[in-house]
Amino acid sequence: MEELERKDLLSGWMKLLESRNYRALKAQLADANEVDVAEFMEDLNAEKTVLVFRMLPKGVASDVFANLEPEDQQLIISSATDTELAEIVEDLNVDDAVDMLEELPANVVKRVLKTARPDTRKLINQFLNYPENSVGSIMTAEFIDLRKTMKVSEAIARIRATGEESESIYTCYVIDARRVLEGVVTLRELLLAEDDTVVEELMETDLIAARTTEDQEEAVQRMMKYDFISLPVVDQEDRLVGIVTVDDVMDVMEEEATEDFEKMAAMAPSEKPYLKTSVFTLAKNRIVWLLVLMVSSMITGGILGKYEAAFAAVPLLVTFIPMLTDTGGNAGSQSSTMIIRGMAVGEIELGDFLKVLWKELRVSLLVGLILSAVNFVRLEIQYPGNTMVSLTVAGAMLVTVVLAKSIGSMLPILAKRCHVDPTIMAAPLITTIVDAVSLIVYFNLAQRLLGL
Amino acid sequence: MEELERKDLLSGWMKLLESRNYRALKAQLADANEVDVAEFMEDLNAEKTVLVFRMLPKGVASDVFANLEPEDQQLIISSATDTELAEIVEDLNVDDAVDMLEELPANVVKRVLKTARPDTRKLINQFLNYPENSVGSIMTAEFIDLRKTMKVSEAIARIRATGEESESIYTCYVIDARRVLEGVVTLRELLLAEDDTVVEELMETDLIAARTTEDQEEAVQRMMKYDFISLPVVDQEDRLVGIVTVDDVMDVMEEEATEDFEKMAAMAPSEKPYLKTSVFTLAKNRIVWLLVLMVSSMITGGILGKYEAAFAAVPLLVTFIPMLTDTGGNAGSQSSTMIIRGMAVGEIELGDFLKVLWKELRVSLLVGLILSAVNFVRLEIQYPGNTMVSLTVAGAMLVTVVLAKSIGSMLPILAKRCHVDPTIMAAPLITTIVDAVSLIVYFNLAQRLLGL
Repeated sequence: MEELERKDLLSGWMKLLESRNYRALKAQLADANEVDVAEFMEDLNAEKTVLVFRMLPKGVASDVFANLEPEDQQLIISSATDTELAEIVEDLNVDDAVDMLEELPANVVKRVLKTARPDTRKLINQFLNYPENSVGSIMTAEFIDLRKTMKVSEAIARIRATGEESESIYTCYVIDARRVLEGVVTLRELLLAEDDTVVEELMETDLIAARTTEDQEEAVQRMMKYDFISLPVVDQEDRLVGIVTVDDVMDVMEEEATEDFEKMAAMAPSEKPYLKTSVFTLAKNRIVWLLVLMVSSMITGGILGKYEAAFAAVPLLVTFIPMLTDTGGNAGSQSSTMIIRGMAVGEIELGDFLKVLWKELRVSLLVGLILSAVNFVRLEIQYPGNTMVSLTVAGAMLVTVVLAKSIGSMLPILAKRCHVDPTIMAAPLITTIVDAVSLIVYFNLAQRLLGL
Repeated sequence: MEELERKDLLSGWMKLLESRNYRALKAQLADANEVDVAEFMEDLNAEKTVLVFRMLPKGVASDVFANLEPEDQQLIISSATDTELAEIVEDLNVDDAVDMLEELPANVVKRVLKTARPDTRKLINQFLNYPENSVGSIMTAEFIDLRKTMKVSEAIARIRATGEESESIYTCYVIDARRVLEGVVTLRELLLAEDDTVVEELMETDLIAARTTEDQEEAVQRMMKYDFISLPVVDQEDRLVGIVTVDDVMDVMEEEATEDFEKMAAMAPSEKPYLKTSVFTLAKNRIVWLLVLMVSSMITGGILGKYEAAFAAVPLLVTFIPMLTDTGGNAGSQSSTMIIRGMAVGEIELGDFLKVLWKELRVSLLVGLILSAVNFVRLEIQYPGNTMVSLTVAGAMLVTVVLAKSIGSMLPILAKRCHVDPTIMAAPLITTIVDAVSLIVYFNLAQRLLGL
């Protein structure tokens, strides 16, 4: 029941496989969870992968197949006859079939589509055409549709008859003759109602749906807001074409958060998990932003060059540069992170611009005053008699923190207003910008207070 | 159907309220989605909140109540009689009641518990005792339990009889006389089976569950792995005590990701959304890390002080400091972000230590060589005849990037191995550490190559 015991499960299967006790293994796999079987197959070599897959009973095989890694799926496809392949594709839900095809090489895709039944092929092709990250690209076509004139008993009979193929049977969708979505009724409501109640009386007509062309993130936010386990998807003519289920939504949430983490650390988002991404791809994802930021900090270096006279006269000034720029960068990143995340989860909107600025100004004054006071006291103790230097550093710290937090909170909102991805305005870029700003403030203050 | 039309819905209600057309408003609210009604009530003043709440039909009222903000819940509680209050509490699912009580002041909690029925009170008290972030703290006690000797028809009859109060009826749990969990059967399997099949034949006995004391994040990962919409929760004696449902899991996922974003940007995680957090709390969450990091970069400053002779002799060297430290910080943060996120979603484990190090070494060499080459060429063009300076900067860049990526990837794994939260080893701390390392490398190289 615990995670540990489940690892015993997989190693038990491995022992049966190694001792060629195929009969016992076959019996165990037939009853096992498809996710565990897929995990078990991941660690096998090509020959054994195919061997184990052929042991699985028909119904189980396609469920396991949907959970396999693309490489293993390809292995099984290449070892399957056209008839076997057609069966697998028919058994898969359309969204799983599409996920698989997106990962396969073109010649394999061609073979898969050739063996599929014409209507399945048409559906798959339609789904493959939805843009990446659109609601259409994550929806599935298998759902229960009812008519509003049905009685509860008829509706339940229909669910029992067609439920085998639906991804989710717990929310049913009521459509008219033109397939326009008219209402939603849950299986719970049907079961708790009398047999001869008409669906129309039970169904919810206050429809909450998504369009195929919408961004998947919006569908995710909507499902979270209303605590739905599936969301109907309609086309431009309000016709029901699919549903998004909660398991897909959880995957999208995790992917989107990972993407934001990557982008906010100045990387191009990766398609695959870290350990499966090649060294070359990782390097490619990272180098572009490193170069851009390096060039930007050359500019900061250029600014520093203008004050050579100042730090040649008082070399002590140089030793405070890392502290000032780091603290400025950290203060700015704190603000930008909060705002970017707040916008991603829908808590902060464009209209909150002034509210955010006013809040950050007060926070930064509070925080900045504490940091400068600590610095002033420390410098007075460490370098007694250099009060003007202490004042310069403390003053620069206060101004830097206030500017850093204002810049850090405003740039993500501005980016979003200009339809630029706000995650760009995260720690790395903010740090670079704040670096330049803090150095200008610091040396200008030094020139005035120290008369350089 | 679109988000836009739903805003029209709320503003329509607002117009009815303002024009005191209470009868029409009452009729509309009775049919509305509880999440929308709660959103509508958020913008009302105290008096109107209570007024609107009293318009809601009984069944709807508790659903809306569960979706309200804590302040509004408190308002309604203080305006309710003891009888009304008892009704609300009985209607709430235990997890919603507990969520509410955790936000309320002690005297209000006392009154709520006093009015609750004794068994409800006992249950709530038990749930309030589960540690924060444990599975127990997010589970609910309302689920369908069956016995394995029941026939399908009996099971469905039981679901129809008790389903009204369950949070989820789509997965049913089979328990024995001591309430030990024996199996799981979905409503779908029950519906698709013959009426006189016995539950024991249908139920899945390969149990995947969570313990009350486990970390909620582990339950989330398990539900995602197996695509479950609810997960049974057992106590230390394997007795079924509750279930975790997918809507709670989605909330946990979003909260945990937000917490990681905040911690990785050197902030204490906040309890409430940004716009609802006070300036003082925001400042408090941010100042601790800013102080710690500021003190650390004072040490970096101290290191810099040791090389005063070097940059007094060649002041040009100072202008490359921001570029070197920034690039090192960015390179290190890229690696630490990927590793921290990879560990959070379970893709990278402690045992992958060497694999990760080997990968990062190769990536950093590739990236480092490109960055140094760009620098070398640029410096040769900008400052011709200063080849030794160009070599110093290019060499320091290469070593910095390799060290930054090694440190950035290893520290999060080390932290996890020492049972320290790996998110601490994110951009801000990595940047500070890499700053010091890169300056030591840079000035040591300068001293050797330039003979300072």
